[in-house]
This record gives sequence, C-alpha cells and structure tokens, in this order.
Amino acid sequence: MFAVNPATPPPVLVLIAKAARNYSLSNGQQAFRSVDPTAGHIDVTDLGVTRGDGIFEGIGIIDGTVQALEAHLSRLQISARMLDLPDLDIDVIRAAILHAAELHEPQPFLLSKVVVTRGIEGTGVPTAWVHTAAVPLIGFEEERRTGIRVVALDRGFRHDVALTSPWLLQGAKTLSYAVNKSVLREAARRGADDVLFISSDGYVLEGPSANLIARFGNTFVTPRTDLGILKGTTQGAAFEILEREGYITEYGLLKLEDLALAEGLWLASSGRQVAPISHIDGAEVAIDRPLTKFLADELISRRS
Amino acid sequence: MFAVNPATPPPVLVLIAKAARNYSLSNGQQAFRSVDPTAGHIDVTDLGVTRGDGIFEGIGIIDGTVQALEAHLSRLQISARMLDLPDLDIDVIRAAILHAAELHEPQPFLLSKVVVTRGIEGTGVPTAWVHTAAVPLIGFEEERRTGIRVVALDRGFRHDVALTSPWLLQGAKTLSYAVNKSVLREAARRGADDVLFISSDGYVLEGPSANLIARFGNTFVTPRTDLGILKGTTQGAAFEILEREGYITEYGLLKLEDLALAEGLWLASSGRQVAPISHIDGAEVAIDRPLTKFLADELISRRS
Repeated sequence: MFAVNPATPPPVLVLIAKAARNYSLSNGQQAFRSVDPTAGHIDVTDLGVTRGDGIFEGIGIIDGTVQALEAHLSRLQISARMLDLPDLDIDVIRAAILHAAELHEPQPFLLSKVVVTRGIEGTGVPTAWVHTAAVPLIGFEEERRTGIRVVALDRGFRHDVALTSPWLLQGAKTLSYAVNKSVLREAARRGADDVLFISSDGYVLEGPSANLIARFGNTFVTPRTDLGILKGTTQGAAFEILEREGYITEYGLLKLEDLALAEGLWLASSGRQVAPISHIDGAEVAIDRPLTKFLADELISRRS
Repeated sequence: MFAVNPATPPPVLVLIAKAARNYSLSNGQQAFRSVDPTAGHIDVTDLGVTRGDGIFEGIGIIDGTVQALEAHLSRLQISARMLDLPDLDIDVIRAAILHAAELHEPQPFLLSKVVVTRGIEGTGVPTAWVHTAAVPLIGFEEERRTGIRVVALDRGFRHDVALTSPWLLQGAKTLSYAVNKSVLREAARRGADDVLFISSDGYVLEGPSANLIARFGNTFVTPRTDLGILKGTTQGAAFEILEREGYITEYGLLKLEDLALAEGLWLASSGRQVAPISHIDGAEVAIDRPLTKFLADELISRRS
C-alpha cells in the first residue's frame, strides 16, 4: 500500500517550554520551538534520565493525519496525574504535536513521541518535547502477513495490584520501561517476536507496547483496564470499527488457557496498528486473515 | 563534624566515551572528558531517557575519599549483565569516577553518580557519564538524631520473583526508578520520610534507595539479596565494622512483625550513610543511639 522511502528524512524535534498549567513563560519565550534534533538537549540531572521519572505517548501519523490524538492526550493527562506531575497544559502539547507533524517532510508513516519528564532535579519544572520521525512500513506489512510469535511472561503483579497499590504506577505510561525492553530480549532468546504479560495469578494483561484483542465467534475481547494496563488507543479505534460492523466488543478477564479457544488474536499499537498472533509459547494459533486485512485497512485509513 | 559550605560549588560532569569493552575509539577521542555540566548532553532518542533503559550507582566521596568504590563498580557490572548491556570497561569507568572526584572543589561530602544507558536508539553504543556534586550534610545529621519515619508499602512482587522471573530486573539498579520516587510521595502523604518495601507475600525487602539493618541482641540482620533487592554497599561496610567489633551479622528473611522485636532499625545508603528508624507506619520503634553514633562515625571516617 505504501512505498517506503529508502532515504529516511531527518526527524523533527520540538521542545515544549510550557508543558504545565500555571507555569508562566518569561523573557518572551515561546510555548514551544523547533530545535536541531541531532544535538543533546537533555540535562544529565533531568529526572527523566536519572530516574525514568516521566511519561510518554507514541502517536502514529499516517499520510499526514495524526491518529487518535485526543485519546493519546487524554491518556497522557491520566499518566501525569498518576505520577503527581504538574497538571499538563494539554492545549500547548496538542499544538506542539501538530506543529511537529507539519514541520516534518511528508511521509506515509511518521511516529511522533511526546515525552514529559519531572524535569531537572530541584526545579519542579517539567521537561517536555515532541520527536517525530519516519518509520519504515515493511516490517509491519510482513508482520500482518505471517503473524507474530509471542511468549507469555510473568509480569510479577497480581491482577488487582493497580487497585491495592497505586504507588506501583501500573496503568501509567511511564519512562520506566526497562522491563518492557528486557522482556523483548527474553522473547528473542526464546525465538519469539513479542510478549504477552501474565499477572502472577494467571490473567492475561497486555504486551510491553501493545494491547491484546481476542476473537470468540462474533465477540471481540480485550483485557479490562482495571488490571493495571494501558487503555489502548489503537485497540479503542479497532473496537469502534468492529462495533460499526455489528460485532460485539467486551472488556473482560482472560486466562492464558482461554486464548487457545480464540479464533483470532491480535496485538494492537500505534506503531504496528494491528498484527495477528501466529504462535503462543511455540504453539500455533489460528490467524484470521480476512479480519486482519479488514482491520488493518480501516485503521490505516482513519482520518482522525 | 562537617561544616556545610553555604555557597554550593558547581558540579563536575565527566562524559565517558568508552564505557563498554571492545568498543574502540576513533578520531583520537579520549576515553572520557570533562564538559560543561549546565549544558544539555543527552539526546532525546537516548534509551536512558525514552525507556529508563540503563543503570546507575550513587557513590559517596567523604573528605576526598571515594567510598566503597570497588563494591559500587562490581554492582554496576552485575546490573549491566542483568540488562544484557555490553560488557562494561570497568577500568575506564573507575578512572572517570576518580578523575571527577579530583576535578571537584574539595568538599566534606560529594555524591558522585555514574550512569550507563543503552545509548542512542539504533547505535548499540552505551552513553555514560559521571556527575559529581556537593551535598549538604545538615539533613543527614538531623536524621541521625531524630530518626526517620517509614511506612511499609507493598512492592507487588513475591519474595522469590528474582529467581522465577529474572526479566523483571529485580536486583538490578536500573534507571527505571519511577516507582522508587512514587513511593516517596505516598510516604509524604502519610506523614512519613521514607519507605520499606514489602513483598506481596509479606517479606521485608529494602527501601527505595537504602538497605535495612535490624538489631536483635548482638545479631544484626539484613534481608537476603536473593529477594530481588540490591546488595548494599553501605550496609556491607556497616557489617564489616560490626563484625570487627565482635557482633554477629546475618542475611535473613524478615517479616514486618519481626521488626517490632528489633532493638534497633536502620536504613543504610551511600547518601545518608546510616539513619535510625523512629517509626514504622506511625508506631514508634526504639532508637539505638550509641550504636547509631558508633556506626555513623565509623562509616564516615572510612578511607576506602
């Protein structure tokens, strides 16, 4: 569908000065400004880099359309509150994301990352930026054809930990993602591409950067967000599409053994949009090819 | 004992170019170099800031002596292996830490942070630096007099999670410390200063930046490191001092109710050295003042 530009155009970086409400700008400083993306901009005492103390969103931009922008902004605000960050000025952050999308050379697929850290230690002022770069589409198209191999890995927490122990920040999209990267290395060691997190009491949660969708007949199920997992922006869009087509959608509790009964399993995320799962822990699972194609086409052609 | 310099001298920053073994330097680049500590040096695509994907150590420097340097370097190497980072060139990192200590204006107490991230995404080359800054001693002296109030908070993981699920990186000192900061905010909301992490099955683990030491008669106990907690460098030094004095030291399993029977409880870390606990969840616990003074004096006067 899309051609990949062999020479990737340079990324665009927009620094956001006024990320938080009630933070006034001095010296006629702008709310955000575009800067050289190849220079170092982050202080070594920024709590984003010394403590992974911050939040982020990864937002797809297809043929110039920023996808699920309001869902991403809403989730960013929720993450900010869970981390007791200053109340974000969402209007400024939205404008910065749109500005970065406009500044970038047009491309079939851009991924825009917005990051808000707690800022340089001692200042109380968040550091925030938007980084927008082209992403090759070949990998995603290949994934949708052949499916992805996942392994189920223990997340270590009970399924109700977000309710009992909110200080563990489960359900916030934080910069403390070392475990989300570590499990991908464990998956690779086991010959797999990706991971399904399982709670210590056996419930299916989410992937390290994606939500799970399971099909049982005409009903599509995704794990409930009170399990300390992220509310999926792409999964949410997929559910809207499915509902429009007359399918039933549900937020439920799934155990690993339930997945063996599914007629189709997908991981949904802003990067890959939707990819079918072909294997769980080495065991083959059915790929629902027509539904995959339908969902991918619909998700990619979204105009909001 | 120490006077605090009211005008804090500027920090020293040393960037380490050659953090990993088998990484050869080109263009006659040095293995490390001192740079302006106030400028931004970290790229916004560095996995240290986008994913908290890296490791660190905080090292005390008292009257010019770098404390427990080899224990810190050894723990940094262990963290690197747990995160599958390139094998570190410890000799270069040691030299950079000593160089930064020499460069800084002499002060009673400096805290030196060494950080190694997975580097700018796609390069495979770690980013590493040493940041050395003066720390006021007043807070620590006050803590040692009055003791600190701690609250016990669920860490969410079983006590054996490091053995069953190593991909969760428990026991590695990673940059993904958002939870370690979040629990301090929860402690403050409960009127406390610090936190004791408890495993989901009831074992006492560690603080978010300190190890626990408990006294029972002439025996001093700290939680076992196979509980997915850090091997304490200051706790290790404290145990050496206690053993020299004829006390018995043990690595054991403690439940929260066991702490009520202790004759003294301390948090030990490179920053505070040693601080007695005065309250757990609002309930007063005995402060062993003579032993606190003895341990603090001995720890502060270490010459290695």
